[in-house]
Amino acid sequence: MRIAILGFGSVGRGVAQVVQEKDLGITVTGLADSRSGIMDPDGIDLQAALDRKAKTGFCGDRSTAPLDVVDGAEYDALVEVSPTRIEDGEPAITHIVHALSRGKHAVTSNKGPIALAHRRLHTLAASHGAQLRYEATVCGAIPVLHVLQHDLLGNQVKALHGVMNGTCNFILTRMEDEGLTYDQALAEAREMGYAEADPSYDVKGIDAALKLVILANTIWDLGVTLDDVEITGIDLITPDAIRLACERETTIRLIAEAIPEKGLLRVSPRIIPHGHPLLVEGTLNAVTLHTDLAGELTFIGKGAGSVETASAVIGDLLYIGEHHAGAH
Amino acid sequence: MRIAILGFGSVGRGVAQVVQEKDLGITVTGLADSRSGIMDPDGIDLQAALDRKAKTGFCGDRSTAPLDVVDGAEYDALVEVSPTRIEDGEPAITHIVHALSRGKHAVTSNKGPIALAHRRLHTLAASHGAQLRYEATVCGAIPVLHVLQHDLLGNQVKALHGVMNGTCNFILTRMEDEGLTYDQALAEAREMGYAEADPSYDVKGIDAALKLVILANTIWDLGVTLDDVEITGIDLITPDAIRLACERETTIRLIAEAIPEKGLLRVSPRIIPHGHPLLVEGTLNAVTLHTDLAGELTFIGKGAGSVETASAVIGDLLYIGEHHAGAH
Repeated sequence: MRIAILGFGSVGRGVAQVVQEKDLGITVTGLADSRSGIMDPDGIDLQAALDRKAKTGFCGDRSTAPLDVVDGAEYDALVEVSPTRIEDGEPAITHIVHALSRGKHAVTSNKGPIALAHRRLHTLAASHGAQLRYEATVCGAIPVLHVLQHDLLGNQVKALHGVMNGTCNFILTRMEDEGLTYDQALAEAREMGYAEADPSYDVKGIDAALKLVILANTIWDLGVTLDDVEITGIDLITPDAIRLACERETTIRLIAEAIPEKGLLRVSPRIIPHGHPLLVEGTLNAVTLHTDLAGELTFIGKGAGSVETASAVIGDLLYIGEHHAGAH
Repeated sequence: MRIAILGFGSVGRGVAQVVQEKDLGITVTGLADSRSGIMDPDGIDLQAALDRKAKTGFCGDRSTAPLDVVDGAEYDALVEVSPTRIEDGEPAITHIVHALSRGKHAVTSNKGPIALAHRRLHTLAASHGAQLRYEATVCGAIPVLHVLQHDLLGNQVKALHGVMNGTCNFILTRMEDEGLTYDQALAEAREMGYAEADPSYDVKGIDAALKLVILANTIWDLGVTLDDVEITGIDLITPDAIRLACERETTIRLIAEAIPEKGLLRVSPRIIPHGHPLLVEGTLNAVTLHTDLAGELTFIGKGAGSVETASAVIGDLLYIGEHHAGAH
């Protein structure tokens, strides 16, 4: 399978490293960051590209634009992992539209395109016989979309609950374990590299809500957007609230929940009893699916990380290779 | 898809009920318990069979033997869920061998055939272009085999740990929560229907060890049997041991673990820190996979139950229908 990697940040470099280290039958024939690109139908020298990126900040040739690679490289699947504006999902949406329009498969770790344009991209993919996969957009290394799409056949998912933002979970864990204030725990999260300089995207619940939108649209085809989610962040939680919860053998966590038959899509701090499967520590993510036959199933794993996210991207690529290799 | 159900106990009736209630495109053309059978290429009246079984103890005609159904019914996949001796895996192995030899797929919830004859059955299936699937043999409703086979492509599983026996986990949970002795907790498990009259298969660790063998042979093709597993049960655990563990913010659980690079296959009571994902309550099961890319992934769900086990069987059937329908 030949792939083009669009975006050479943490995830893109993670994918390149895994492809380089493992014999997966994947060749990278196109590669671009926001300001340079490189194409080679026989396979790009990934180590050279990684070294060049580290030294110069460019993975390829400055005369080659990202869209030149999307439109011109010879590949079977586009890996769209470029930095993307959450407001409009660009430039990822344009890259994915161009690839699908060429009949190429697309795999992305970018939440924007899927949360903002799921139906449009899905329809475009179907009309060109191409696959669009996005396991990496939800809960990092946990293959929850694969499970939903392939492993629970015959089941109906009635509802889902999840801890979907590792930054918030880390802050709440530290507030509980060490009695820190929100500001102290946030400062620690920043030091550890778990929180951005502007943490509002995480702590206000936006990131978890985007994942909820993606899951809801994938499972139930609800066609919802961020505006349909009732969102409360964790930034107003006090040490007192956490202490009170703890005295009652419970803990506060930021829970994303979807219950379609009640019309409920919500991200909010919730009280969870000790011993509950969703009560994970630190930056872990967890998702519970409530199904009609299999009952409650909970999946726990790392929600972020270069190699962990690359794992989800690679899983999607190999799945496409196994099941849709003959499409083009 | 046409199926024959061999065995009409809890799991067989669960499968029949789900097939009857849901529009899954599955028709039951053969059905047998240990002493009667029924065949109808146009589809058996399942409600009549369920009623007959409840009233008379026979699902079909006493002149029709189970093997007559396996050999004579017109079906695409055999569902082998009959009561089976763990010593030799019979009569399930014979049923599966006959079905595979006819080029029919086989789906089973019986651990015996897979733990005792995995390679032989796998080879037979492959030589006849048939699928052999057994999701229901391991951890009930948790689709761990599907995840291992399809959702972690590109990953290498380095080790696994699990709470794979709900009876033991219930007993240990009650000993900790209520300060019960082992005998008291076992009596309670019996009352709740979680333990057999002879509980040794569960409490001595045999059931968990069989699941470990099945997982190890599936993931790494180790070709191991029960004799290769180091097994210690939970029947000698004292309330003092549990109290001591609890004082150190830990708990005792029966853990099955496989680490091939250390040659380790073991089922034994282990000390687990509070907050650890594997630390589940009551009759739940949990499995942690240690992978090279995705890191640690934990899956939690119900380990037993008629509908939950039926869910795993139905999942296998529909998977075969989607991916191998054209085989015959």
